[in-house]
Amino acid sequence: MHPFLDEDFLLQNQTARTLYHDHTESLPILDYHSHLPSGEVGENRPFRNITDAWLGGDHYKWRAMRANGIAEKYISGEAGAEEKFLHWAACVPYTMGNPLYHWTHLELKRIFGITRLLNPGSAREIFRACNEKLADPGWWPRGILEKMKVEVSCTTDDPASDLGWHGQIRESGFAVHVLPGFRPDPVLDASDPSKYNAYLDRLGEVAGLDIRSFGDLMDALARRISFFSSQGCRLSDHGLEQMPEPGKQSPETLFNRIREGRSIPVKEQESLQHAILKELCLLYHQQGWVQQFHLGALRNANTRIRIAVGGNAGTDSIGDYPQAVRLSSFLDSLDCSDRLARTILYNLNPADNGVFATMAGNFNDGSMPGKVQWGPAWWFLDQKDGIEAHLDTLAAYGLLSRFTGMVTDSRSFLSFPRHEYFRRILCNRVGDQVEKGELPADLPWLGQLCGAVCYHNAKSFFGF
Amino acid sequence: MHPFLDEDFLLQNQTARTLYHDHTESLPILDYHSHLPSGEVGENRPFRNITDAWLGGDHYKWRAMRANGIAEKYISGEAGAEEKFLHWAACVPYTMGNPLYHWTHLELKRIFGITRLLNPGSAREIFRACNEKLADPGWWPRGILEKMKVEVSCTTDDPASDLGWHGQIRESGFAVHVLPGFRPDPVLDASDPSKYNAYLDRLGEVAGLDIRSFGDLMDALARRISFFSSQGCRLSDHGLEQMPEPGKQSPETLFNRIREGRSIPVKEQESLQHAILKELCLLYHQQGWVQQFHLGALRNANTRIRIAVGGNAGTDSIGDYPQAVRLSSFLDSLDCSDRLARTILYNLNPADNGVFATMAGNFNDGSMPGKVQWGPAWWFLDQKDGIEAHLDTLAAYGLLSRFTGMVTDSRSFLSFPRHEYFRRILCNRVGDQVEKGELPADLPWLGQLCGAVCYHNAKSFFGF
Amino acid sequence: MHPFLDEDFLLQNQTARTLYHDHTESLPILDYHSHLPSGEVGENRPFRNITDAWLGGDHYKWRAMRANGIAEKYISGEAGAEEKFLHWAACVPYTMGNPLYHWTHLELKRIFGITRLLNPGSAREIFRACNEKLADPGWWPRGILEKMKVEVSCTTDDPASDLGWHGQIRESGFAVHVLPGFRPDPVLDASDPSKYNAYLDRLGEVAGLDIRSFGDLMDALARRISFFSSQGCRLSDHGLEQMPEPGKQSPETLFNRIREGRSIPVKEQESLQHAILKELCLLYHQQGWVQQFHLGALRNANTRIRIAVGGNAGTDSIGDYPQAVRLSSFLDSLDCSDRLARTILYNLNPADNGVFATMAGNFNDGSMPGKVQWGPAWWFLDQKDGIEAHLDTLAAYGLLSRFTGMVTDSRSFLSFPRHEYFRRILCNRVGDQVEKGELPADLPWLGQLCGAVCYHNAKSFFGF
Repeated sequence: MHPFLDEDFLLQNQTARTLYHDHTESLPILDYHSHLPSGEVGENRPFRNITDAWLGGDHYKWRAMRANGIAEKYISGEAGAEEKFLHWAACVPYTMGNPLYHWTHLELKRIFGITRLLNPGSAREIFRACNEKLADPGWWPRGILEKMKVEVSCTTDDPASDLGWHGQIRESGFAVHVLPGFRPDPVLDASDPSKYNAYLDRLGEVAGLDIRSFGDLMDALARRISFFSSQGCRLSDHGLEQMPEPGKQSPETLFNRIREGRSIPVKEQESLQHAILKELCLLYHQQGWVQQFHLGALRNANTRIRIAVGGNAGTDSIGDYPQAVRLSSFLDSLDCSDRLARTILYNLNPADNGVFATMAGNFNDGSMPGKVQWGPAWWFLDQKDGIEAHLDTLAAYGLLSRFTGMVTDSRSFLSFPRHEYFRRILCNRVGDQVEKGELPADLPWLGQLCGAVCYHNAKSFFGF
Repeated sequence: MHPFLDEDFLLQNQTARTLYHDHTESLPILDYHSHLPSGEVGENRPFRNITDAWLGGDHYKWRAMRANGIAEKYISGEAGAEEKFLHWAACVPYTMGNPLYHWTHLELKRIFGITRLLNPGSAREIFRACNEKLADPGWWPRGILEKMKVEVSCTTDDPASDLGWHGQIRESGFAVHVLPGFRPDPVLDASDPSKYNAYLDRLGEVAGLDIRSFGDLMDALARRISFFSSQGCRLSDHGLEQMPEPGKQSPETLFNRIREGRSIPVKEQESLQHAILKELCLLYHQQGWVQQFHLGALRNANTRIRIAVGGNAGTDSIGDYPQAVRLSSFLDSLDCSDRLARTILYNLNPADNGVFATMAGNFNDGSMPGKVQWGPAWWFLDQKDGIEAHLDTLAAYGLLSRFTGMVTDSRSFLSFPRHEYFRRILCNRVGDQVEKGELPADLPWLGQLCGAVCYHNAKSFFGF
Repeated sequence: MHPFLDEDFLLQNQTARTLYHDHTESLPILDYHSHLPSGEVGENRPFRNITDAWLGGDHYKWRAMRANGIAEKYISGEAGAEEKFLHWAACVPYTMGNPLYHWTHLELKRIFGITRLLNPGSAREIFRACNEKLADPGWWPRGILEKMKVEVSCTTDDPASDLGWHGQIRESGFAVHVLPGFRPDPVLDASDPSKYNAYLDRLGEVAGLDIRSFGDLMDALARRISFFSSQGCRLSDHGLEQMPEPGKQSPETLFNRIREGRSIPVKEQESLQHAILKELCLLYHQQGWVQQFHLGALRNANTRIRIAVGGNAGTDSIGDYPQAVRLSSFLDSLDCSDRLARTILYNLNPADNGVFATMAGNFNDGSMPGKVQWGPAWWFLDQKDGIEAHLDTLAAYGLLSRFTGMVTDSRSFLSFPRHEYFRRILCNRVGDQVEKGELPADLPWLGQLCGAVCYHNAKSFFGF
């Protein structure tokens, strides 16, 4: 029997162990998609306690706690930090088999050096021990990034953001590159004209431009994209249920109607969305950016919790929207004039794995290795089975060896051990095939490919 | 090499064996969803022969026999009991790898003590041996329920049923609780006005009410729900392709049109269905019942066999209807006023596993553990791979430890070993993770969680 | 550690080894679906070099090379044979985990006796060694078919084809039966009236009939089907996104409109397609043919590559079209009058595995074993995981033992080792269950079932 979470965690055979320990374990982290708050890196203030650092804003944990019958007060509510932590600790044994069980203990071990299992019996001691560590600068935001060997961390930022913290961090000479990521979701959501118009006013202000027409909007966005580039941005990102389809009405007409404060039907919102997105993608291509599409989430499904707690509160689920035809048309409309930027596609529904893996392959044109990527297992899929399914499917339908690898996609500074988790799974999959005689036992070759997936491919893909 | 079907069947490692034999094997059965005929429990007449007890009405076997090229005469037709049994026995070796192969031999072993494999060579002897046993009261319906340690069995009943047998069974002092289940599928199907009206007339009669309006219908249903509750019912159940969506026309208008004998378009049938279902769900919540939704079957696909043999004859298949948006809207419409009853969601298409597992999580609100359940692997999915995929997906996306566990969903008294089958698979999955170092080797903790999934969770969830 | 690609490749246990080596390894190949060019068998000219034999027209390899960043010149372009081969060789190590890695080395070993791994270091030597062999008649098209023990190879042919080469091959007394396959895709595609009319003119000419009406078309097709039958054809095949649905307009009217050179809307094209397909299927039934449907591909997604290189150039992907309702209705419309021909259904999206596996079961009517087949893992699914998923799903939902087995579906003479690959995987799956005690260790029985799947079932299903 293998002990829990030892140095060979998830490494079921000798080849896997060699691949992990000799070829990927010590590589730095390029976290090209995260929701890390740049302000917290900039300010570098100590966390008040482990509850703040670990539970605040973590909708994975919130969701598990609700499923375990814990009242909202102890989740997102007014209860005190220790009380909330004790409730989480009481929930942990019930997360058996969930990625939270692994993440929890891996994070405690790697970041705090704590090897005791978290449960009601150990909760108070672990609460105290973590808080003690967190007071030490080695456990403040920058300390954690350094401890985790993060080389690059890309954040997710609104086009109207002044990226002030990114500049401050750069100028401070901090060794970790904290780069902005361009995520214009509000630009694409015209469902509520008054909210949309207020946003456009703010965007225009930041861009130094009065946005009166569709053309103005695109000018403003072009300026923001240039500004983001000047601040080190290399990539954009979009969250959509499906890729939008074009409609009959011109985007100019639709845009004017909204600027007059009138709402437009859902189908025409999509039309406008399509027009804006396509223009944006041409700008991304011009800038040499990577564009990312996160497709298929059904968000904020629980109105009662959304009203009480807010969005991103853990009531999102996997959607089953058709994806293939729309995605294919959209990518082809950019590729046909050879203006398709390097692209990463993420699906949330594992039933779409085949669609996404093969769609990426359609737009690889030989201009560079892995130009269109099927991104790492996203959100609900970011767990052992989900990562294995992604790696296996990618290998079967494309070139695993050209994969740009893992991201945390997290709001938390404590999530970086997910890279270790991914690397162990990758090495275990490859090692397993070697041991079974499905791959030659050429460790230097396979070690190099595993290292490429964990670090080098992303480095050259993004030009970090 | 592990021998076939020994005491450690499906238990591939020592931890799994301990978890099964020490923590779940001896637990009684709470079979909260079945199609067991209450009349046969009530009457408790001996089965005429093993063909009647085992093959009659078993559409799984029928389907396999047709796929094996056996004429309908020997399946659902006029052939004699022994002849039919011999044809089934000849088919059994061809079911290699199908759950029927395991079920067949597990049922013969556990219920009849027969360890020989069923095939043409053993068929006559097994036919005779089973028939001998079946003459003994220990193998009459009540005897089998007791032998299988069934504590509660919930049947599936029409709202118009008088539940006479349930009362008779209760009053007879029979140790097994045979409880009714409220399944109003005919109330929701207005596709054929004359059939529907005839049904409503009967329902009104039983409810002591003349159903003239939509309001009358809901009154009648409320009375039936109260009556079912008074007879021990704790749950309802619905079989639908998809959750219905509301329409523009009022249900009152649509209902009146049908009561006048006029048909309404499919879209408006759905509208009416939505209105009735929503009202029903509010009543379930009021009663403190559990509501169940079985979604996504494409039923009676083969017209020729439906005409010749009838419905539920083994020509149903997995549908690929979109589920997420409709299911989300419907549950939210109940939850937003906090009137969502405890709920169990079942999907038939394994490609929807992710959608269903995560949808359940959206409506867990901390009021109790596992309020919204993703139900056990249903119908075609009720086999080793399907159960494993369900358990793994549930663990990855939710809390396996709060799962209410297995049901037979069967019309047959011989299907209870499916609970054993499920328990072995569960213990094997958990044991496998322990042996690989993916879970701590804390057997009392894991044994308790496995026991909860197999028995205790359902006990408290349903209030049995 | 198991060495790569030895005699027990993919056979992880002793039972699997016995099942493979003793029961399936030496069986001949019945390749009932391929795109082998009959002309090349007829002419039996030597291949010019290994590049021509192996890389020309192989869109799997093209796709991998583009994903690896290789310019089109070295893929489908004007570069020389050796240059192209060297680029492919440089790509091979990057296909680690892709079926191409296994196929490449299995084909080199079985067909050329080459055991060195293909990579830049070995490329020139392997290029030379293969070319040497290819000059020997044992490696000309007919020699390879004999070496691979092919008993029957069914090609894919246009209804307007004169099947001249098939006749020539038959008359030449060649031991391998090369039979035509009827694939009327152009007959079903009326999207471009001028192209369609030109096709119909040619078809009419070959059929000796002036096609002026829908009735004429069906007469012409009936004549072609008779002719194909007379030339040994036993099966038809269709490639469709989804099964078409009937519309309101009569096919006669729609057909006339097209014959007048006018285009019709997409929905009405589908109507016409439905009418033609249904008539064709009745003809197939009359002939006693097997009909095949390949459903769900999204083809030629990349316009730039399609224009530069042509169709079937490696820019196809898995679609996510709804399949169940349409497929069910279509099959039922033939079955209800008992005129459903033996049928094989292929899906491209692995998320549809459950739908297809169970749909086949709906139309098995006991008239013969396995009348409606869920065909082998197709295209992107034709790899280890895809084949395993197909076999496991088929076993769980139907009768694996009645499966008609593998096809190459290939344009290349070097693809026959895919049958070996399939047989190894099949034996390994069955052997694994035996070793785990999930199947009785009755090797003669299981060996017979494995042999049936690899050869005998197809032999009797097609009447070869």
